[in-house]
Amino acid sequence: MAGNETAGLPRRHMLRQAGWALAGASVAPRQTGAAEADAAAPPWMTEQGAPAADAPYGSPSPFEKSVVRRLRDRSPFLTTASAHTPLQDLAGIITPNGLHHVRSHAGTPAIDPDRHRLLVHGLVERPLSFSMDDLVRFPSVSRLHFLECSGNTPFYKTAKIEPHWTVQDTHGQVSCAEWTGVRLADVLAEAGVQPGAAWILAEGEDAAAMTRSVPIEKALDDAILAYAQNGERLRPENGYPLRLLLPGYEGNMNVKWLRRLKLGDQPFQTREETSKYTGLLPDGTARQFNFVMEVKSVITRPSPGRGLGQPGFHEVAGLAWSGRGRIARVEVSADEGASWQDAALQEPVLSKCLTRFRLPWTWAGDPAMLQSRATDETGMVQPTRASLLAERGPNFMYHYNAINTWRIAPGGEVTLAV
Amino acid sequence: MAGNETAGLPRRHMLRQAGWALAGASVAPRQTGAAEADAAAPPWMTEQGAPAADAPYGSPSPFEKSVVRRLRDRSPFLTTASAHTPLQDLAGIITPNGLHHVRSHAGTPAIDPDRHRLLVHGLVERPLSFSMDDLVRFPSVSRLHFLECSGNTPFYKTAKIEPHWTVQDTHGQVSCAEWTGVRLADVLAEAGVQPGAAWILAEGEDAAAMTRSVPIEKALDDAILAYAQNGERLRPENGYPLRLLLPGYEGNMNVKWLRRLKLGDQPFQTREETSKYTGLLPDGTARQFNFVMEVKSVITRPSPGRGLGQPGFHEVAGLAWSGRGRIARVEVSADEGASWQDAALQEPVLSKCLTRFRLPWTWAGDPAMLQSRATDETGMVQPTRASLLAERGPNFMYHYNAINTWRIAPGGEVTLAV
Repeated sequence: MAGNETAGLPRRHMLRQAGWALAGASVAPRQTGAAEADAAAPPWMTEQGAPAADAPYGSPSPFEKSVVRRLRDRSPFLTTASAHTPLQDLAGIITPNGLHHVRSHAGTPAIDPDRHRLLVHGLVERPLSFSMDDLVRFPSVSRLHFLECSGNTPFYKTAKIEPHWTVQDTHGQVSCAEWTGVRLADVLAEAGVQPGAAWILAEGEDAAAMTRSVPIEKALDDAILAYAQNGERLRPENGYPLRLLLPGYEGNMNVKWLRRLKLGDQPFQTREETSKYTGLLPDGTARQFNFVMEVKSVITRPSPGRGLGQPGFHEVAGLAWSGRGRIARVEVSADEGASWQDAALQEPVLSKCLTRFRLPWTWAGDPAMLQSRATDETGMVQPTRASLLAERGPNFMYHYNAINTWRIAPGGEVTLAV
Repeated sequence: MAGNETAGLPRRHMLRQAGWALAGASVAPRQTGAAEADAAAPPWMTEQGAPAADAPYGSPSPFEKSVVRRLRDRSPFLTTASAHTPLQDLAGIITPNGLHHVRSHAGTPAIDPDRHRLLVHGLVERPLSFSMDDLVRFPSVSRLHFLECSGNTPFYKTAKIEPHWTVQDTHGQVSCAEWTGVRLADVLAEAGVQPGAAWILAEGEDAAAMTRSVPIEKALDDAILAYAQNGERLRPENGYPLRLLLPGYEGNMNVKWLRRLKLGDQPFQTREETSKYTGLLPDGTARQFNFVMEVKSVITRPSPGRGLGQPGFHEVAGLAWSGRGRIARVEVSADEGASWQDAALQEPVLSKCLTRFRLPWTWAGDPAMLQSRATDETGMVQPTRASLLAERGPNFMYHYNAINTWRIAPGGEVTLAV
């Protein structure tokens, strides 16, 4: 149920429904006789460990070296790549900064923050130029928000889908962080917005000069000029030293390495909102300015490469999010949508933020088709693939948010069923 | 005011009280004439940047290389050190894993997670040994909690205080993360708690074999066996692959590299709760089992090394926390406690978690004594140093939570006034 206590997985006696129950027995192998032998000291307990001073900025254990961002497709053009977050290996809702997904069109520029400036001009009373020091002196705000690439989960055409894809490949262009920065509204107030200003051009300081048009309503609502990510300054590949953050809007509009904001009376019709980031509909017209990332979810555990192993108790866990607000409900099905069970939502459930859902499941060893279906606080329900395709057709691109299906084989192996 | 809207810094028209007001003018230098010149492309915009594939696990910008953990005292025994979090450089409430403070007594062991076992024995029905795979199969829970070293802010004796200390030196043994793991109550239920079991010995797998006694009430309440920190597996220096997490309790009890839990009918009286981590009172007796880290706060901006620079608008920002629950209120004083003003609390305000507070301030350039005073939801108010010393005397150690004072010089320089 939505919003229930987080620790709050249902208790055993509440779990008598077939399948969705904690095994009466245990998830843990027991070693009654030999257990005490484990108290013997392992080798790393017999000598002093590494000094803390050796790691002024720490790194993961060498045993976790496979937990990294990966490119789904290795393009010959390495600077216009997409490096995905390993969702199958992560817990909770925070994405550590080293694993936040990266989408860039001309690679990561190495910007000197002391030389960086933000220009605010166009339909303003006073064109202004801000140094980073200027911006950091403004009142600050921190918020936890997801960022999802518009092209995450490219499933309109099944022909493009590779059967070996993991959840990192299919959904790894979504991440979540605590962002800190200045409210864009405060900066615009300094410049003075002229009557008639309706759109803002945001320009990035990479070699692609990434530019997008942002409605002024969004700029004055919850937009942030972000300079920090999970406490520390932005990572270079995520926009250091300054990025636009438009909570709930497609990733591409959250312009990284932000250098310029120009106010105008109409959209600027840049390449990234005309030939790209529009959706081709069955009638031949294109849907432009698809800003909001709609309600979506995916099961990360189990998932391909992270199979069930053996029958018995398993926790089904995953992530849900909506660009329109809070997640209100996530349901899970093991029979491809014939029946659904409410998952528990981990508190805090925040607006335009990843929400972790979990459901205890006893798997009997039969084939299964695992799905999750999210509903947000506005009542929007994640659609089936069939209904999404019926509306948009197979030539649409971006904003795919249909229910995802993992096929469970009798051996516990998990594969993508779309 | 407590719990008010987060973005919710007071609006300008609400800020007419002397001093605590947004300057009517601006925080930003204006360059009306020259502003447009900034639109010229800097060098990093004229060539392709670094490919995303070059950073499978990302790192901070080279321009942030000074933002690191530091030892306050460089002990000749490097493995029993304390590396502090650079609070003066951080924003929001999340501490990035690479900067989470470290306190260890025998360095960081390099543990192979496949060989790691957790033994649960003593007053249980069934002694059990758990592999990491066993533990990860349990239902999981994620929660945001601070961790503070019991010895953070060693200010009982002023003689030990160095005038050059920054907030990293004085308060940098507190950090905050989203922790994921298994509820200890669930693991104990598997083993079966025998009647009479009242305390649990927790033992770490470092060369210090760090051991502490934990009351069973806490173990069955909100204790977690944590294996993940901000989404990814624990960092080696923070307990990889498994640590005990006792929300709100002194850091030392949150045993890292956890290998053993032994249930007994009384505390085990280990070294770390007899000769260490007790408090010597003026009457010569010692206060033992000081578990909860009481309500505390500190201003991180401005702070030593991060001075005001020039008169005018400045945001006063800091962190507050309590081991008893949520922060209810933070007040700020610029006149050493003669008058107080409520700061805004950044949502979400969570139990036993860092809370970011902020207050806009117009500094006229006069000398000032900046303080913050936190109150938690149980009504506990952060004490003055005088009242804390009156209760505990100068020979007490650990759990110092008095109001902190930063002295502002006319030039804007900030120094520790205790």
